[in-house]
Amino acid sequence: MTKLDSLENYKDLVVGKLNLHFEVTEPRNLYEPIEYILNLGGKRLRPVLTLMTCEVFGGNPEEAVDAALAVEVFHNFSLVHDDIMDDAPLRRGNETVHEKWDINTGILSGDAMLIRSYQLLEKYPPEVFKQLTSLFSKTAIEVCEGQQYDVDFETRNDVTLSEYLQMIEFKTAVLVACAMKMGAIVAEATPEDADAIYEFGRNLGIAFQLQDDYLDAFGNPETFGKQVGGDIIENKKTILYLKALEFATPESQERLTELFSEEPAEPDQKIDEVKTIFQKSGAVEFTKAAIQEYTDKAFSVLDGISIPDSHKQGLKKFGEWLMHRNT
Amino acid sequence: MTKLDSLENYKDLVVGKLNLHFEVTEPRNLYEPIEYILNLGGKRLRPVLTLMTCEVFGGNPEEAVDAALAVEVFHNFSLVHDDIMDDAPLRRGNETVHEKWDINTGILSGDAMLIRSYQLLEKYPPEVFKQLTSLFSKTAIEVCEGQQYDVDFETRNDVTLSEYLQMIEFKTAVLVACAMKMGAIVAEATPEDADAIYEFGRNLGIAFQLQDDYLDAFGNPETFGKQVGGDIIENKKTILYLKALEFATPESQERLTELFSEEPAEPDQKIDEVKTIFQKSGAVEFTKAAIQEYTDKAFSVLDGISIPDSHKQGLKKFGEWLMHRNT
Repeated sequence: MTKLDSLENYKDLVVGKLNLHFEVTEPRNLYEPIEYILNLGGKRLRPVLTLMTCEVFGGNPEEAVDAALAVEVFHNFSLVHDDIMDDAPLRRGNETVHEKWDINTGILSGDAMLIRSYQLLEKYPPEVFKQLTSLFSKTAIEVCEGQQYDVDFETRNDVTLSEYLQMIEFKTAVLVACAMKMGAIVAEATPEDADAIYEFGRNLGIAFQLQDDYLDAFGNPETFGKQVGGDIIENKKTILYLKALEFATPESQERLTELFSEEPAEPDQKIDEVKTIFQKSGAVEFTKAAIQEYTDKAFSVLDGISIPDSHKQGLKKFGEWLMHRNT
Repeated sequence: MTKLDSLENYKDLVVGKLNLHFEVTEPRNLYEPIEYILNLGGKRLRPVLTLMTCEVFGGNPEEAVDAALAVEVFHNFSLVHDDIMDDAPLRRGNETVHEKWDINTGILSGDAMLIRSYQLLEKYPPEVFKQLTSLFSKTAIEVCEGQQYDVDFETRNDVTLSEYLQMIEFKTAVLVACAMKMGAIVAEATPEDADAIYEFGRNLGIAFQLQDDYLDAFGNPETFGKQVGGDIIENKKTILYLKALEFATPESQERLTELFSEEPAEPDQKIDEVKTIFQKSGAVEFTKAAIQEYTDKAFSVLDGISIPDSHKQGLKKFGEWLMHRNT
């Protein structure tokens, strides 16, 4: 059964098939950037979850590879377009597509990736194809809406926690949930089980993003993949900021607002000061509790699913690993 | 049967349903631009062709509306992204989306439109859904490839006529062909007939684009929708340019190359001079013959299709109208 030591096998399966599907053809200026971004690596978390979920429901993970790739290619499409919108120079330590080529190349190659992700689902028979494609489109639209909310929030000063949670649910969690439900659909799980695993993925996805917010400020610089303090430098209104603004003393609130209107060239002191406010206000404690709450919700959903306990343990172990990661 | 006087009815059906499907919801910054571009008007040629083809094959055009809208929404998605790439300020006489909002809004709203176009196909049962979606994805990828070739050609000086024809086939003709084949699929035409109508649409689509190249230079300014001479101002390597460069005297070749490296603030004289070279070289004559050739090819495909002659006459009339339009 699914064990943590098989994660690497799943990942190898994904990466191997990805390379087969995405050889560079003409026009090269369209397909080279696609091959480039798909080969930058990454944890391949979403496609691995598709394969794992398929196996958990008694399916053959090999059968789920194309659905898994669709999710991974869609995810990379969204990164290419988001990186243009965020004016990001780096992705996974390498130049972003629009930096290496130009914005037009990023737009068009991204479009082609979105379409290719739909094409990957064509290997499934009509009934399954329609189920997968409908779920995929619904998720894709929500990811766009999540990105739009994220952009809108940058210029708003009245974002509530529930709006923030909705944003990360759409921008991050629904694709994790979709990845898992696709595995369940390929394995021909019952609709009830497929919906339950979607809820598992959605809650785990929210916990995952909140964990990301926490690690961005308090992660170990030696193991965290990105620059620690990046969100603080960019004045991102994460859960830590929103709760600190709510919980902190009036003086600290004022100071935090002030700090989040600045973009100092040497950000170290700002980062330290903001982190102290996050901690003293109780925002860190709140965030850790929220992460635990969403993780618990995810795990409690598992109880109602009709799979052997040993399979549930596999998913639980994966969830625990995900929540105690430091990268 | 399909008569030219029913074209307006088809168009009304398309526009009415478009408005029903695309009301503005939250997040407004994502959906307002979509509602805006979809309401800028236009000939609605592609969705009208879907409905017309469905009826030609004995289907109920009402049944084909969602497929028709998918094609129209996809077409508008491609306009929004192309306008960013071309840095175009105007579309159908109004501000382009990225001008009225900004580039990021154009990218994200375009992405959402592409996804929404797939969702429109979900009303069809699984077998039909898969046929429509697969054709749609294949077409969409070709449209991206066509756009990439168009971009590549801007900086190339060795574009051949066959490369140019391939580019306009992908960028323009395949979507016309797809629109018609979708109507045939909804009407449950035989696969042979569906393929034949695709060929009709593909050839007519190429003729249509060549006609557009011709009208851009030689159309009546009072009835042609765009600025006459626009392609010449932008140094676009259309069929007129490519053939003039091949046919003209060495002196005229040199002069044409020179003119196409300039962007004068007052372009009237350049336009006149280029048009004279186009005419004297025989490029205009060649282009007119090519338009006729592709139109004839389209019509000859009709002969093999198993529909009543009166229905074929409807399609022929439409093709003739399209080829003798002056807008």
